Amino acid sequence: MPKGVPESVPDDGLTTRQRRTLPITAVHTGPGKGKSTAAFGMALRAWNQGWPIGVFQFVKSAKWKVGEENALRVLGASGEGGTVAWHKMGEGWSWVQRGMESSEEAAKEGWEQVKRDLAAETYRFYVLDEFTYPMHWGWVDVDEVVSVLKDRPGSQHVVITGRYAKEPLTDFADLVTEMTKVKHPMDAGRKGQRGIEW
Amino acid sequence: MPKGVPESVPDDGLTTRQRRTLPITAVHTGPGKGKSTAAFGMALRAWNQGWPIGVFQFVKSAKWKVGEENALRVLGASGEGGTVAWHKMGEGWSWVQRGMESSEEAAKEGWEQVKRDLAAETYRFYVLDEFTYPMHWGWVDVDEVVSVLKDRPGSQHVVITGRYAKEPLTDFADLVTEMTKVKHPMDAGRKGQRGIEW
Repeated sequence: MPKGVPESVPDDGLTTRQRRTLPITAVHTGPGKGKSTAAFGMALRAWNQGWPIGVFQFVKSAKWKVGEENALRVLGASGEGGTVAWHKMGEGWSWVQRGMESSEEAAKEGWEQVKRDLAAETYRFYVLDEFTYPMHWGWVDVDEVVSVLKDRPGSQHVVITGRYAKEPLTDFADLVTEMTKVKHPMDAGRKGQRGIEW
Repeated sequence: MPKGVPESVPDDGLTTRQRRTLPITAVHTGPGKGKSTAAFGMALRAWNQGWPIGVFQFVKSAKWKVGEENALRVLGASGEGGTVAWHKMGEGWSWVQRGMESSEEAAKEGWEQVKRDLAAETYRFYVLDEFTYPMHWGWVDVDEVVSVLKDRPGSQHVVITGRYAKEPLTDFADLVTEMTKVKHPMDAGRKGQRGIEW
């Protein structure tokens, strides 16, 4: 059930109004379902605010997010809320003209673009989908990520999803949710189902 | 990272194709964020499949879901995916003509309508948002819910959200995810933020 009363009022010299527009960094991690799905659900709220949304999918296969992608593209084009830009690593990133050598190079290119967009305040709401993995694999330095997020201008909200979120990131994040797998149909031998898994 | 290979193949006499259209019952529970948000994210996939979607909000205040509601209404009206019907207990349910005495009565009315819709196969994808609470409070009998879900016709997927999901329900569900609160801005004294919390 929603609740609106904080347990304590911080001694940070900010007004409630100022605190309401502070940029949020959220991390959805853990082995359970719903990490990306909840991030795209949050994007619906951002869209409803009329905010420009940037999605960066740090995954090779895009099949699993096609429902969310189509829905957000239709919303972004509806003219009734914010715009939506959807960038897919698996398709070589839209801003990169040449082929890329490796997933590592592609992930790094993705992060460079996120940095440029944060500096330019291109979007108001970012989904960095499965971005924990390039950090987990050591391709992108988590301390640099935290430093860039910490210094980002304006009120840009960032949601990062994926397993194995590193401690410097979860320490820095305002909102961390761990999705725990309690039970999954694949445990019972079912394959992924249309409309559910993608 | 997505994966498509089940650990074992069930000895249920069904083909993979049959198993792919089995109705899924999913429960998002636990104290963390993202239970409803992930359910609405799943609804994007259902919408993308062209499925009729029915949302039943078993909550009094609708403020917190207005972004998702507007987004799903726009999607439902876009003609590019499935339709969306959004029913709110806080506004007295659309199909009820008279005033209701209490939240308990309203919750029971909601469940009666869900039963009628399941029997009629009105929707292909149901979000029963915060439906765990009427069960938790003893207003709706969890054994009856399980029995109705078990016997529902066709391939109707049902997602139930909320804390305190009862064991007969999680035992029956195919997919159970527990959202664990690791860190939340309200712990640091921040109030709910526009575009993030609603």
